[in-house]
Amino acid sequence: MSTPVIAIAGVGLIGGSFGLAMRAAGFTGRLLGVSRPATLEKAIARGAIDAGGTLAEMIPQADVVFLAQPISVILETIGQLGPLLKPGALVTDAGSTKRLIVERAAGLPRFVGGHPMAGKEQQGVESAEEGLFRGRPWILTGDPGAEFTGWLEKIGARIVRLTPEEHDAQVALSSHLPQLLSTALASQLTGQVGTGTAGPGLESMTRLALSSHDLWRDILATNRPAIAAALGQFATVLDEVRGELEHGGLDTRFVKAREFARSIRPK
Amino acid sequence: MSTPVIAIAGVGLIGGSFGLAMRAAGFTGRLLGVSRPATLEKAIARGAIDAGGTLAEMIPQADVVFLAQPISVILETIGQLGPLLKPGALVTDAGSTKRLIVERAAGLPRFVGGHPMAGKEQQGVESAEEGLFRGRPWILTGDPGAEFTGWLEKIGARIVRLTPEEHDAQVALSSHLPQLLSTALASQLTGQVGTGTAGPGLESMTRLALSSHDLWRDILATNRPAIAAALGQFATVLDEVRGELEHGGLDTRFVKAREFARSIRPK
Repeated sequence: MSTPVIAIAGVGLIGGSFGLAMRAAGFTGRLLGVSRPATLEKAIARGAIDAGGTLAEMIPQADVVFLAQPISVILETIGQLGPLLKPGALVTDAGSTKRLIVERAAGLPRFVGGHPMAGKEQQGVESAEEGLFRGRPWILTGDPGAEFTGWLEKIGARIVRLTPEEHDAQVALSSHLPQLLSTALASQLTGQVGTGTAGPGLESMTRLALSSHDLWRDILATNRPAIAAALGQFATVLDEVRGELEHGGLDTRFVKAREFARSIRPK
Repeated sequence: MSTPVIAIAGVGLIGGSFGLAMRAAGFTGRLLGVSRPATLEKAIARGAIDAGGTLAEMIPQADVVFLAQPISVILETIGQLGPLLKPGALVTDAGSTKRLIVERAAGLPRFVGGHPMAGKEQQGVESAEEGLFRGRPWILTGDPGAEFTGWLEKIGARIVRLTPEEHDAQVALSSHLPQLLSTALASQLTGQVGTGTAGPGLESMTRLALSSHDLWRDILATNRPAIAAALGQFATVLDEVRGELEHGGLDTRFVKAREFARSIRPK
C-alpha cells in the first residue's frame, strides 16, 4: 500500500485535526470521513477529509480505520466493522479509556488501541487544527506497524506504549481524578464563595469544572474501578494533609508537590 | 490633611504596586517606604516610593501606614508602631488572613484590616505594576474613612466589607483550600505520573502546587481552624463524589460545578 486510504470515523476535533495534521505532514493518500452529513461537509470544506459517507460506504475502501468518536460510539462501531473491513486493514482509535475498547475489539483481525493526549475546550471540526498533536503523548496499546507509527511521528506526537490496564490506571490519576477534584471543589463552594473573594488561584482550580458531563459520561462509565482507586488514594492523602496542618510536615509536602508540578510541564 | 503622607512597610509586589497605583491615580503626597536598603533603592528607581528608611524614621511622618509585609512581619510591626504613630494616623494592611492581625492591632488608635485579592507568581518590587488591583476585590474589615476608600476606588479595587472572621472563613474556602488540594494532588502523583500521560488539565490543577511554602507558612499558621473546616467539608464532598461515581448523580454535580465555575469568572 504505497498510498494508503485512511477512513476517519467521527470527524470532530480529534478526527478533523488528524486529517489536517496528516495532510500537513505530507500524506498524499485519500482521507475519508464517516460522520453526519453536515459535519462531513464542514470537514471537506476545511480540507480535513477528501470525501465522506456511511460506514458501509467508506470502511471497505480503507487500509487504516481511525475511530475518533465518543467511547460509547467507538464500542458500537467496533461491533459493525467486522464484515466491512478490507483484508489486512489496521483499526485504531482515539478513545480516552482503553481496557473496554481493546476487549471489545479482540475479534477484529488487526486492532491497536490509541489515545492522543491532546484536546482543547472547543469541540467540533470547526476547532480542528493541524498542530493539535504536536509534542503531545499518543498512547498505543500495541504495535500498529512501522508505517502508521511513522505518520504519528511525522505529525509530531510522542509515542508512549502502555497496556490497556496501565493506560486506564494512569489516566485515572492524571486526568480523571483532576477532573473530579475540580468538579467536587466547584460544587462544594456553590453558595459559599462569590466574586468577592474569588482570585486567580480558584479560577485555575475550577477550569476543568467548566467541562460538560456529556464529555465525561463515557469516560467515567468505562473506567470506574481505576477512578475509584484514584479517589480513594486522594482521600488518604487529604487525611495526611489535615494531619500535617495540625502537627507539621506541610513544608516537606510543598517541596515534593512543587517538584512534581515542575516535572510535568513542557520544558 | 490635603496632601497626606503614606508610609508603605514592605515594598514588595503588593506594597510596590500600591505606590505605583497611587501615583498613576493622581496621588500627589509623599510615598515613603520601609524595607531593606536594596529594596528601597529599587522601589525608588521604579517610582513606587519617593524615599525610604527605617520604621522609626518613616512612621512618625505618615498620615497613612500601609503594612504590606508577610503576616508574621505585620504582626511584629504592629507591636512596634504604637509610640511611633502620628496622632490620628490610619494604619491598614494587606495580610492574607485577618483575625489574628486585627486582634493584635486592637491597641492601635485607628486600624482597619485590609486584604487586596491580587497577586501574581513573581514576587518583589521588580514585578510591581500599577494595574495590579484593578477590578480585583479589596477586602476591608472596617471603615478607613472616605479619603482612603476614595483612593482604593481610584486605583480600581472593588471594595468588599467583611468581618475578620467572615474574611478568614471565606478565604479558607476560596484560596487556602484550593492551594492545599493542588499541593495534595501533586504530592500524590509523584512517582505515579510522568510526562507520558500529563495533559493540560493536570497542568492547571497543579499550577498552585508551584507555590513556595515560604509564602504559605504564615497564612496556614494563622488560619488553621477555618482551613481545617474547609478541608473537612471537602472530604465530605469527596465521599459524595465517590458514591455518585458508583451509584449515579455525577451529571447533576457537573451542572452545579459548571455554573459555579462560570459565576466566579470575570464577565
